[in-house]
This record gives sequence, structure tokens and C-alpha cells, in this order.
Amino acid sequence: MQVTIDGRAQHFRTVAFAPTRNEVRLIEQRLLPHEFKVIGTHDFRETARAIRDMVVRGAGAIGATAAYGLAQGALAFRGHHLPRFEAHLTCVFETLRDARPTAVDPVNAMLEVRRKMQAATTVADQQALALTAAEEFADEAVAHCRALGEVGVSLIREGMRVLTHCNAGWLAFVDIGSATAPLYAAHQQGRAFHVYCDETRPRSQGATLTAWELAQQGLAHQVIADNAAGLLFSRGQIDLVIVGSDRTLGRSGEVANKIGTYTKAVLAKRHGVPFYVAIPLSTLDWNLPDGAAIPLEERDAAEVLGAWGLTQSGQREYVRVANPSSGAYNPGFDVTPPELITGIITPAGIFRPQDLWQNRSLLGG
Amino acid sequence: MQVTIDGRAQHFRTVAFAPTRNEVRLIEQRLLPHEFKVIGTHDFRETARAIRDMVVRGAGAIGATAAYGLAQGALAFRGHHLPRFEAHLTCVFETLRDARPTAVDPVNAMLEVRRKMQAATTVADQQALALTAAEEFADEAVAHCRALGEVGVSLIREGMRVLTHCNAGWLAFVDIGSATAPLYAAHQQGRAFHVYCDETRPRSQGATLTAWELAQQGLAHQVIADNAAGLLFSRGQIDLVIVGSDRTLGRSGEVANKIGTYTKAVLAKRHGVPFYVAIPLSTLDWNLPDGAAIPLEERDAAEVLGAWGLTQSGQREYVRVANPSSGAYNPGFDVTPPELITGIITPAGIFRPQDLWQNRSLLGG
Repeated sequence: MQVTIDGRAQHFRTVAFAPTRNEVRLIEQRLLPHEFKVIGTHDFRETARAIRDMVVRGAGAIGATAAYGLAQGALAFRGHHLPRFEAHLTCVFETLRDARPTAVDPVNAMLEVRRKMQAATTVADQQALALTAAEEFADEAVAHCRALGEVGVSLIREGMRVLTHCNAGWLAFVDIGSATAPLYAAHQQGRAFHVYCDETRPRSQGATLTAWELAQQGLAHQVIADNAAGLLFSRGQIDLVIVGSDRTLGRSGEVANKIGTYTKAVLAKRHGVPFYVAIPLSTLDWNLPDGAAIPLEERDAAEVLGAWGLTQSGQREYVRVANPSSGAYNPGFDVTPPELITGIITPAGIFRPQDLWQNRSLLGG
Repeated sequence: MQVTIDGRAQHFRTVAFAPTRNEVRLIEQRLLPHEFKVIGTHDFRETARAIRDMVVRGAGAIGATAAYGLAQGALAFRGHHLPRFEAHLTCVFETLRDARPTAVDPVNAMLEVRRKMQAATTVADQQALALTAAEEFADEAVAHCRALGEVGVSLIREGMRVLTHCNAGWLAFVDIGSATAPLYAAHQQGRAFHVYCDETRPRSQGATLTAWELAQQGLAHQVIADNAAGLLFSRGQIDLVIVGSDRTLGRSGEVANKIGTYTKAVLAKRHGVPFYVAIPLSTLDWNLPDGAAIPLEERDAAEVLGAWGLTQSGQREYVRVANPSSGAYNPGFDVTPPELITGIITPAGIFRPQDLWQNRSLLGG
């Protein structure tokens, strides 16, 4: 998407690759919204660290980063000995996979690249294919998000007030995003509407990343405290909710997403407001039987007990907000049942969550 | 309540008066939870500033502060001329009232003190009565909170997990608190239970004030992000909700309270968890017809866009969290309808919100 730097609009992807330098290029998301910076990693171990340390985050974005990281590792190999190359690749694969062990996207992305590499029989040819396959993976991810926008754009009508939660925007993918895709498509068509960004404590991705994205693209928006949505619903000030998902179960229609999503779905149902989940096909899980089987990450209490921000003097710093002797409980995700979800927006169309399973052939299942 | 300072437990009220120095003594709540400090104001204008600048906050606490402030203003008068004394008192009254123009407690508290002063006919006697009346007001407020605890204590059973929102604790009253009163009473009876404190963004009163209070009294508790309650409800990890109220309508049974309260009530209803509101009688409004008539304060966007906390170097500082070019919408309160409320805990007993009106003679209406 476009980013305006010193008054000049430039186009960036969240994740890219510079083959001449064997460099993975990443937007340094930990500095946003206060500083925009693209960093380069020059070794697959450095790329794995960037995933682990959340320089790059978001299911789609870390998938593409892992795909590029695998190509980067392949290209760095010197020699012609295929078994040794294979052993090296296994090490690269495992290093990148273990950077975020609960995520499924990096694994799927790297398996896809390795599958395509099999078409060649020499190290050099496999190296060339690795690069092509990683680029294809990223391009296809962008095409999926663009398709999500085309499918979902008709939901966004003139004058609407749309609520979104967390960041399912272009920073969470290679480009365009999932929940944001219909918003960007409608904005490009000249439709005027207003977006409420849930702050999304404890990591505040709504206030930092989504608000930054929307501001860069010129979409009208306001940040609200996570507590405020209830009042807005009760006063009829929200017309539509769109969120992303970290894992959507094809069998049960349940949606795992950032903590707080379920609450918004309950409120939307009570007030008769449509609640949509936008996902690329890679987010669909056809194996798990139901939401109880989804492992829900419990995160560091420090996230709840304080906040990261910019001090008066311009330093990025963590401040402790809560009582120093108190602890916190910090679950990262919750699960929304299908009866609270109006529709799942996919590149292949909009489906009721209960209908995903019967349409699995359309949905890559 | 007890506060442990340098290992020694001492008893403090949120608001007190030192007659020999004509000094209103207040816990400086803006420094909590990072520093415990009692400050003194020596002039009614200084007392009004302490209310305005939120050194002291919470309906019950600012009511008692205004009562003491009126006595302080009365005692500072020099002379015997009654009409001049009356004119001076009017100025004191208006100064204290205008410190928080939307609050009703300071007005009611000061009217009560003035009413009792009418029993005397000289300036000196009225001054003495002002002091007595203010002390009586504060003592009665404490007695009401203690009665709340006795009424509500049976709701707190061994092993329960109780959710509370914002701070309706002793820091919001003269002592004991409203929502916390049953918790403190059950704790004193030796019952073991666990309290989840909603962080309560944007001002984080749950993470700062309630968590500090509970820690001081030794109650088991954890802070959670406002977003996390939905997951806890859906997993059956919350057995009871108790919150306070800023205004409860005797006619309609609606409850105005800190933003986010309505959302918790909706979740509690969906999951069949009892939802109680604990209030002293002064919180009841017998005039307004319904919630639409309650003026809901819209507060400074900066509260949503950042956070106050302690930096690594120990400075209390505001950090900007959100995207710098984004704005925020920051409503301070919401309204919960009676059908979501299991009961209103009052010093006179527990009532269904729909039954308040028919019991108004019991409830001071």
C-alpha cells in the first residue's frame, strides 16, 4: 500500500525480497506508528529472529517472510552436492518454523516453496526455483487479499460506520490485508464511511497499526477504547463489524481471533448488526473438530500491566500502569461460535460459517 | 481501610478532616498505585481544585470532600455578621459545586450540611455545626458502605471467581467502597475467592486503584484486559459480577456506570452469570424518567490515545500509544438496562432493578 514519507507517496509491501543482495526486506512494525522504517535481513537466522522478535507479525506476513527466508537460505548455499543442500534446507526450514511455533502459515508457505523446488534436479536450478516460488507465494497472497476486497466491497455502503478489531490490515499480510481489504476497495471506489478502530489492549494493534494504516490511506477513522463499543452499539452508531481471524475451523465454523473479538460478536448479535470475518483460504483449518481443540496462547502479564508508547521527550518506552504488586492473566485469543457470525468473506465468496464444510472443495479444503 | 507503609499497617479514610488546622486531608489518588501520599488542603478553593484536578475522585469521596470543604470555608470566616457569613457560604458552596459540574453527590452533601447549620442562629454556632455536620456526613457514608457489605456478603461464596469493573472501592468513597464492600466483608470472614479486575481503559482505574486496594487488603486478584472477560465467561471462569454505579434510575431501573459496564452485563446475561450493582442510597436518582435522559460525559481523546505509567527510570509519565495523526472518541459512561441486572445491592437490602420504584420509601426516594 501507499505510505507517505516526507510528503511523497511510495508503495511498499510488508514483506519483500531483494535478490541481488539476498535480502529479505521488512517493515519494522515494532517502531510503528511512531517511525516508518524498512529493515533488511541478510541471513535466514536473522530472518527467523525478525519473526520471533515480531519485527514482522500477522499470519500472512510471517508466512511470506518464511517463504522468502527459505529461498534466502537456499540461495546462500555454496556448492553442488544435492544431499548436503537438502540437509542445509532442513536446517533452514526448522529454524524459520521454530521462530513462532504456534503459527501454521510459515510451515504451509515453506512446504509450498519446497514442493516447487522438487521440479529441478541440480542445486543451482533448485536455488532459482526457490526464489521464483517464494515470489509466487507472495504474489498469490496479495491476489487473495485483493479478491477478498472485491468480494467484500459491496458490504460497505455510503455513510456506514464500521467497527474493526486488532490489525487484520496490510501490515498483517504481504499487502492489502483481510478485514481491511473491503474497506480499501470501497475507499478506492470513492465511497465515504467511518471506521472505529478498537484500541485492542493489551498490545494495542488497533490504535497503533490499524489507525496508522487507515491514516496513510486517508480513511476517516477514530480509535475507541475496547470498552466503548457497547455504548456505540446500544446507540445505533455501528452498522457493520469486520474482523480477521487467526484460525477458522472448516468443520465447526468457529473463528479464533484476537482476544476481545468474541465480545464484539456478542454485542453485534444483541443489536442486530452484521458481523463478518474476512480470511484468505490459508486461515481455514479443516482438521480440528471444534474450538475447544484450538490451543489458545497465554501471553506475558507485562502486556496487560503496562503499555508501550512515546514519552514527551520522544523516547519509545514501556510504562508500568498497574499496581506493582498485582499480577495479570493475559490470554491472547478467543473463539467466536458460528451463530454469532453473519458471514465469512473469502476470496471465493461469502459463506455462512455453518456452510464452510459443504463448500470445502471451493475453499481449498 | 488498612494501608501498609514501610511494613506497618495503618488505617486511612480516603477523605478526612483535621479541625485544629482547618485542613481537609485527601489520599492523592493521581499518584496511586505507585506512591501513597496524603495531602492537606487549607482553603476551600484549594479543596475545590483538588476535586477538579482529581486528587480525589469517585462519587462518595467527592461528596464527603465537598461537605468538609464547606465546613472548612465556614470555619475560615472571621466576624459575627450573619448576612455576610451567608454570602460567604454561598460563594464556598458554588466554588465546590462547580469543581465537577456533572456530579450530584457534592451538591447533596453540602445541602445536608447547610440544612443542619440552620439550627443555630449565630455565626460561631453555625461554624461549630458545620464541622459536626460534615463529620456526621462522612461517618454516615461509611456506615452505608458497611451496610452494603453486610447485605452483599452472602453472595460471595468460597472459591468463587468474581469480576469487577473500574474502581467502586474505598478510594471512591470515604471508606470500604460499594462494589468492594461485600468482597471485603467476605474476606474478613475468612472466605477465599478470586477477583478479576478489568483494567478499565482508558483511565485504567481497575489496574491502578482497584488492584492496589485489593493488594493492600490481601485479596487474591489478577488484572485482565477489558477484552479478556469474554473468553473467561465463555469458559465458565467467572461466577459473579459486582460493579458500582454513578447514577441508578429509581424509575426505570437503569444503571449508568463507567464505560464498559454494559458490555460485561451483556456477556454475563449470555452466560447465565449473576450481575449485581452495589450502591449507597445517594446514587439513586428518582427524577429522571430513563437512561436516554442521563447526560453522558465525553472525555479528552488523549486518555484513549495514550497511557499514564511509571517509566523504567521511575518517572510518572504519559506515553502516546496510538498513531499520532489519529483521533479518538472517548465516552466516559454507558447505561445498562434492568433486564441485564440480577440485583441492586443497597444498604436497605437487595432489590431487582424493576422493583426500586415500588420500594422507594425504603430507599430514601
